[in-house]
Amino acid sequence: MNSENISICEKIVSPSYVRQGSQARRSHEQLIRMLLEQGKCPEEGWSESTIELFLNELAVMDSNNFLGNCGVGEREGRVASSLVARRHYRLIHGIGRSGDIAAIQPKAAGSSLLNKLTNSVVLDVLKLSGIVASCFVVPMATGMSLTLCFLTLRLKRPKASYIIWPRIDQKSCFKAMITAGFEPVVVENVLEGDELRTDLEAVERKVEELGSENILCVHSTTSCFAPRVPDRLEELAIMCAKYDIPHVVNNAYGVQSSKCMHLIQQGARVGRIDAFVQSLDKNFMVPVGGAIIAGFNESFIQEISRMYPGRASASPSLDVLITLLTLGASGYKKLLAERKEMYTYLAQELNRLAEAHGEKLLHTPHNPISLAMSLDGLQAQCDKAVTQLGSMLFTRQVSGARVVALGNEQIVSGHTFSGFMSHSESYPCPYLNAASAVGITRDDVTLCIKRLDKCLKSLRKEKVKKMRGKKCSLMFDFVI
Amino acid sequence: MNSENISICEKIVSPSYVRQGSQARRSHEQLIRMLLEQGKCPEEGWSESTIELFLNELAVMDSNNFLGNCGVGEREGRVASSLVARRHYRLIHGIGRSGDIAAIQPKAAGSSLLNKLTNSVVLDVLKLSGIVASCFVVPMATGMSLTLCFLTLRLKRPKASYIIWPRIDQKSCFKAMITAGFEPVVVENVLEGDELRTDLEAVERKVEELGSENILCVHSTTSCFAPRVPDRLEELAIMCAKYDIPHVVNNAYGVQSSKCMHLIQQGARVGRIDAFVQSLDKNFMVPVGGAIIAGFNESFIQEISRMYPGRASASPSLDVLITLLTLGASGYKKLLAERKEMYTYLAQELNRLAEAHGEKLLHTPHNPISLAMSLDGLQAQCDKAVTQLGSMLFTRQVSGARVVALGNEQIVSGHTFSGFMSHSESYPCPYLNAASAVGITRDDVTLCIKRLDKCLKSLRKEKVKKMRGKKCSLMFDFVI
Amino acid sequence: MNSENISICEKIVSPSYVRQGSQARRSHEQLIRMLLEQGKCPEEGWSESTIELFLNELAVMDSNNFLGNCGVGEREGRVASSLVARRHYRLIHGIGRSGDIAAIQPKAAGSSLLNKLTNSVVLDVLKLSGIVASCFVVPMATGMSLTLCFLTLRLKRPKASYIIWPRIDQKSCFKAMITAGFEPVVVENVLEGDELRTDLEAVERKVEELGSENILCVHSTTSCFAPRVPDRLEELAIMCAKYDIPHVVNNAYGVQSSKCMHLIQQGARVGRIDAFVQSLDKNFMVPVGGAIIAGFNESFIQEISRMYPGRASASPSLDVLITLLTLGASGYKKLLAERKEMYTYLAQELNRLAEAHGEKLLHTPHNPISLAMSLDGLQAQCDKAVTQLGSMLFTRQVSGARVVALGNEQIVSGHTFSGFMSHSESYPCPYLNAASAVGITRDDVTLCIKRLDKCLKSLRKEKVKKMRGKKCSLMFDFVI
Amino acid sequence: MNSENISICEKIVSPSYVRQGSQARRSHEQLIRMLLEQGKCPEEGWSESTIELFLNELAVMDSNNFLGNCGVGEREGRVASSLVARRHYRLIHGIGRSGDIAAIQPKAAGSSLLNKLTNSVVLDVLKLSGIVASCFVVPMATGMSLTLCFLTLRLKRPKASYIIWPRIDQKSCFKAMITAGFEPVVVENVLEGDELRTDLEAVERKVEELGSENILCVHSTTSCFAPRVPDRLEELAIMCAKYDIPHVVNNAYGVQSSKCMHLIQQGARVGRIDAFVQSLDKNFMVPVGGAIIAGFNESFIQEISRMYPGRASASPSLDVLITLLTLGASGYKKLLAERKEMYTYLAQELNRLAEAHGEKLLHTPHNPISLAMSLDGLQAQCDKAVTQLGSMLFTRQVSGARVVALGNEQIVSGHTFSGFMSHSESYPCPYLNAASAVGITRDDVTLCIKRLDKCLKSLRKEKVKKMRGKKCSLMFDFVI
Repeated sequence: MNSENISICEKIVSPSYVRQGSQARRSHEQLIRMLLEQGKCPEEGWSESTIELFLNELAVMDSNNFLGNCGVGEREGRVASSLVARRHYRLIHGIGRSGDIAAIQPKAAGSSLLNKLTNSVVLDVLKLSGIVASCFVVPMATGMSLTLCFLTLRLKRPKASYIIWPRIDQKSCFKAMITAGFEPVVVENVLEGDELRTDLEAVERKVEELGSENILCVHSTTSCFAPRVPDRLEELAIMCAKYDIPHVVNNAYGVQSSKCMHLIQQGARVGRIDAFVQSLDKNFMVPVGGAIIAGFNESFIQEISRMYPGRASASPSLDVLITLLTLGASGYKKLLAERKEMYTYLAQELNRLAEAHGEKLLHTPHNPISLAMSLDGLQAQCDKAVTQLGSMLFTRQVSGARVVALGNEQIVSGHTFSGFMSHSESYPCPYLNAASAVGITRDDVTLCIKRLDKCLKSLRKEKVKKMRGKKCSLMFDFVI
Repeated sequence: MNSENISICEKIVSPSYVRQGSQARRSHEQLIRMLLEQGKCPEEGWSESTIELFLNELAVMDSNNFLGNCGVGEREGRVASSLVARRHYRLIHGIGRSGDIAAIQPKAAGSSLLNKLTNSVVLDVLKLSGIVASCFVVPMATGMSLTLCFLTLRLKRPKASYIIWPRIDQKSCFKAMITAGFEPVVVENVLEGDELRTDLEAVERKVEELGSENILCVHSTTSCFAPRVPDRLEELAIMCAKYDIPHVVNNAYGVQSSKCMHLIQQGARVGRIDAFVQSLDKNFMVPVGGAIIAGFNESFIQEISRMYPGRASASPSLDVLITLLTLGASGYKKLLAERKEMYTYLAQELNRLAEAHGEKLLHTPHNPISLAMSLDGLQAQCDKAVTQLGSMLFTRQVSGARVVALGNEQIVSGHTFSGFMSHSESYPCPYLNAASAVGITRDDVTLCIKRLDKCLKSLRKEKVKKMRGKKCSLMFDFVI
Repeated sequence: MNSENISICEKIVSPSYVRQGSQARRSHEQLIRMLLEQGKCPEEGWSESTIELFLNELAVMDSNNFLGNCGVGEREGRVASSLVARRHYRLIHGIGRSGDIAAIQPKAAGSSLLNKLTNSVVLDVLKLSGIVASCFVVPMATGMSLTLCFLTLRLKRPKASYIIWPRIDQKSCFKAMITAGFEPVVVENVLEGDELRTDLEAVERKVEELGSENILCVHSTTSCFAPRVPDRLEELAIMCAKYDIPHVVNNAYGVQSSKCMHLIQQGARVGRIDAFVQSLDKNFMVPVGGAIIAGFNESFIQEISRMYPGRASASPSLDVLITLLTLGASGYKKLLAERKEMYTYLAQELNRLAEAHGEKLLHTPHNPISLAMSLDGLQAQCDKAVTQLGSMLFTRQVSGARVVALGNEQIVSGHTFSGFMSHSESYPCPYLNAASAVGITRDDVTLCIKRLDKCLKSLRKEKVKKMRGKKCSLMFDFVI
Repeated sequence: MNSENISICEKIVSPSYVRQGSQARRSHEQLIRMLLEQGKCPEEGWSESTIELFLNELAVMDSNNFLGNCGVGEREGRVASSLVARRHYRLIHGIGRSGDIAAIQPKAAGSSLLNKLTNSVVLDVLKLSGIVASCFVVPMATGMSLTLCFLTLRLKRPKASYIIWPRIDQKSCFKAMITAGFEPVVVENVLEGDELRTDLEAVERKVEELGSENILCVHSTTSCFAPRVPDRLEELAIMCAKYDIPHVVNNAYGVQSSKCMHLIQQGARVGRIDAFVQSLDKNFMVPVGGAIIAGFNESFIQEISRMYPGRASASPSLDVLITLLTLGASGYKKLLAERKEMYTYLAQELNRLAEAHGEKLLHTPHNPISLAMSLDGLQAQCDKAVTQLGSMLFTRQVSGARVVALGNEQIVSGHTFSGFMSHSESYPCPYLNAASAVGITRDDVTLCIKRLDKCLKSLRKEKVKKMRGKKCSLMFDFVI
């Protein structure tokens, strides 16, 4: 309430109580002031009450909430359903303008503030990991955001038609290149110990073979499923600088790992990284649908933001802003620390389990998030057992535990991938993945290990039956 | 509650009351059954209580809400903030999979159902206007959705580099072509009476000049600001068929007008229309951020949906589904009827006002949504008066009333537009736009006319002062 | 946001947009100012956005929402569940203090304002019907609120042990007297035409018989089921004044009827009315649980409010305040007008139906809300048919249509009521009640008549069967 | 969704995913089943998603949410504001019927279930502390609930007019007796060490003096501010049994203390306790407004519930049910354990502080919740200093820290209390109270001690100034 209304309140209930109440209001506004002034993620999280106060304040600044507004345009932020209005805190106008997703809307000062502040707070959180960069939130998931980066680069490199891409078996980043209209040049990884790592020589060979001016960019990856590990970003960045080729990094869920962030930072320091893209949902525990496009050259990042034609949904921005204000920087750092701790716990438990079942935990020290346990023994037992394990885990509500069999072949947008899902044409063994991602709990790990143990035991019994002359495929209780 | 629980309830309170309660539950389920079976927008709108029951049912089918789930993947639908979880009804997994925005997610049966049903209900509503087509909702606004269509066409027409585009001065559709990496070929409109219409001959000349194989598509427009009127879709569609050139229609806010929909239907009947794109917010009164990509060839529309790399936000789908279930087909039709009625009212009131101020309502019968009133007299009075009127209306909370002065020149992505905002290099007079868009109320019109009248009167007084020797620019109380 | 924060916002997005946004905020505050200054129900309803803004402002003034508060008391407004906090808008401290339900709480300036404003707005709405009185909202339903009035009177009339009560067959008002520790003196009604009316002579006889000093009060009733009609308040009020006996009126759902309110006003003008009590839910379409205790002598009403020992729930106050702010005075008056119109429609339809089935609509012009249709024919048919009709209506989801058979006898708290439910020891015929209460829709009436018609027809067929030798009781498809 | 709808879903998305989703639904229903079957507080808390699912299921069973309902009664559960409907989960009908607050409503099977289950779950939680009793939730705070108990006893003891009440200086429990129409007989406490304890001899003297048949009941207290301690319940209960006098215990915030609960249990075992009343908000961290009336004789507790005339608000029941389902029994026990731990911490910190300032922590081992620190030194310094400390704490947002000066005299409902607030006519010293109540955090204690320390230091400086010749009253920065 403004001071005038406070004065009237003092006539209704005791002035001293009202005065204390209005001082209390000031302490909420003080938090809001700091956010507005500094544009940083507050160290301590806000209460829901401060957050909703703030969002309501933003909403009343948008023209669709003006009490005296009359609208005769084609886009007035009208909402037919009050359920919908409410769930968006009555922020209806989205973000951006025709020209630019970062632009300010005359009809929506509140939504515009939301947009600016979200970008600023998200940038601050990226800086926690030591990266000084420029960024914006875009309401598209990682794949489409990578596409937008490639489309922006096209304007700068009209002759280029190839993208060099150290292989990673994840469809959406592959399709991101296809959608943008480029031909991905897949560079197979090399096996070092258990790890699959970037084949730097093969990359350089391709660059020279194709001619740097024909190459739109190198498209590398940090976060990935073991036994693949993050690309050798430093070396790639140096190579890109040397050949004057842009470098775009798919950092999908890498914000949660200081190692991934450090790789990017180092790459940019010693060589060239033009943009790196990360998912909002995977790093900040919000619903699917947004990404952060970041880079070290502010003007290039602005060019990307200006490539987005038209307005866009404010929903992912709203989600990440609410989440970061709720957690505060300290809360987010705590989550990251817990994730790291759970990684160690998961590795140790998987190792124990692997030993108990005659398998081994693959040695993939360069991958800070994902782990893999071999399934050699299971495979030996029966061809279908590996797939069967996947089905069993699904049925038992172990989600995210990926079983990778050998010898899959898949054609994606015309390109054939041998050994699909394993990032390699010939990985030595089938395996199972498990990851320690942000938000994971000790219970997740414990339950997963327990259920996995049960499944493996039950498959072993199956084996015994088989050895007594039965066929292997009996026990499928569930196939996806 | 399932029947088992109902039985237990009957031991706690009188069986006859519980039985009636459970019968009442069935009537909600009956509505849900019809939706699931037919995939159609219900004729009568649902109560909030049925809608929330349904959304909760969907949510419990997603793995992030499984009580016994343990997650060891990199994407588990975890949510850090309960404010965020709640506002999305705990539907966190988004829609689509790496490969395809229409694909089903194993981890999220509920969100997958939401996605399928939304597309189906939206299609049903498009059919209300007589169009039999295929469509899907995409969580990007119109501009970026057009870009996706162009990118899909690129794969089919690798040699093409031009898009033929009858001029419409709206940045995002222009940028949609630039972003997709094509060169827009702007075809100026012709003046017929007060209307700006498609110059069909100029289009055909361009086609022949550039060679049809070099042309990605014709990109035409239905909904637009008067005095421009919807493109001559039938003739363009016939031309596209003749020259075997794809045809993409920007139908941004055309769903709300039976005329626009009829144009598309006719175009497809007599010639070629490959895709037409419409905004969710402008047609369905939901927050900014989604669009419908539709077409008459199901397999082509599927190709577009498969071009979207990766998962996407479910938020726009959720909004439009809630809204259509709330309104029901009858409610939506009622809104459309009211819009049409308000168009007539707005035209009549603007006409009266124009006459009172020595201006005229431009005669643009082909534009079913937007109207324009000349500002010749105001312009004559003083050069700055026209711009000043714009500022005055903004300050007085008349939103959406666009003032278009003569002689603006603007460079957009390298292309110079003379007479920018007027869709023409030399429209005869400055003017003011007002539109009757879905959701407009009688109060909107009445207030707008009243405030506009006041502004015009106050500017006239200004003129008198000026004639007494003062300069014109004094009175700017507000400049954007 | 305060002006300081607004200034910072102007550095983030264009000052002119922010300025407009902050002016828009002022228009919400202007509405709040008027409410605070005048304490009246606004003429036009508020938007949900203004209401929630206001409630949030109140909440931040309560100590449980102070960001720097530390609590070491036994009652600190802590809330364990965020679902609960949210549904109460974080207003947790309730209303009142140990001494007085109207008292201000030092720990809760916001809740205290809520309490004062609700009482003031509710009073304003009572004044719409011409009554100038004093009142407060109490979070107890009508019965318990009457008890509180009687308990307050006891202090003033320590010798009194009787309450004179013109019979109305509704348990809670009877029990209200028993609970307060008094002996109800039931005065049977007289039959005038079809109407049951107050037997004034019998009342006066009782007064003289018992001695006025032994009588706590006369306890009369306005709103009631036909064919009973509101008590003759004027005459009773005059009698109370003459004998110096307090007079308490049960006006349960009478606020919605100008006739009931007029009766009270007249009674107070010409005689004595000490307090009148009305239900919140029945008059204002809020959940069950609150009442308004009102009267013409402010100090007596204060005495009652000071009788309530301790704090109380703010929930009913919150509900009625939200509702009245949403409706506005004009919205509430519109609801009342519609109710009146539906009364006429219901009467006409019931009349038509009665004639079609050989029954009659009882002539009860003094009852402005409830109607009754005779069931003589049905009764004649078979003894159980009347009860059966009740069951059938229940099963067919016709709620509130009460069927009253003859000859029920019921003992309530030791008192035997012959002809229970009919307000009379010997009403001439069984009947069915239907009421036009606030919020009723045309659909309610139409559906009710339709279903009633079906039931009556189906019972008649039954009769035919019976006359062919079958027993009457067969067809009970449902018994409560 | 019912099985039929599930089947249709399987045609829309993969059957295996839908099947898993519907199994997941079953796990929510399983929890609900256990609640319905056992009526117990679940050991582990439920997720918000299960709770809301359950409440929605209840709501659809109430007639106001029947899709086909038509209502022609005077009370149909209509709601004018969707904000209000939503915040009550559309449970509008309240609890109870005219006759009985525990009765089942034909129109509201869902609300009736809510009522029954809440009472059952609350009873289960009372049993955690070893008490086997009978109870119900009443939507009135402690004071009014005590009144209801007294009113019920009146029917059984028509001659009685006195209530024997060991003094406790809290207005609402005193007024509870006045409101019920009885004369409280105040029995002063005796000083034992620092503690104020029940004067058993004085009580017995009064009983004999007044005659047991003239005494309605003994009204004792457990939870109270130190240095008063819980009454000697065992001895009082034995005395009540001996003289055949009912015994009602005010256990306002005693559920949170195993000591208080143990006292009641012991009292009932060895003697007589008819009813004990506890506040919902103080024990269960819900908003103010509800209480639990409990006792060991089920039929007497039912008599009380049947004394409540009419329906009542379901809001307090809803709050406590949501809260207990959220916490689970284990969560609630955890809260109680933390409270106990904080009591020790608070005692230790207050002791340290007292010593530093030349005061002492009063030795009150029988009070398990509240502590008191003497303010002798402060008092010695200046008469007004003690009051001033209170004001200073208020201003510094230390809520609940009560400062008790000597020599207050207050008249409450005609009775004069010397030494008001100190439970004694002549307690030896002024003091300050602090309590460790459920929900208190370590931060609350730390901050309180810190601020208290600052205030005491600042008042000491004042003293120095005063001793240099200035008056004492200067520094009042705030007076309530």
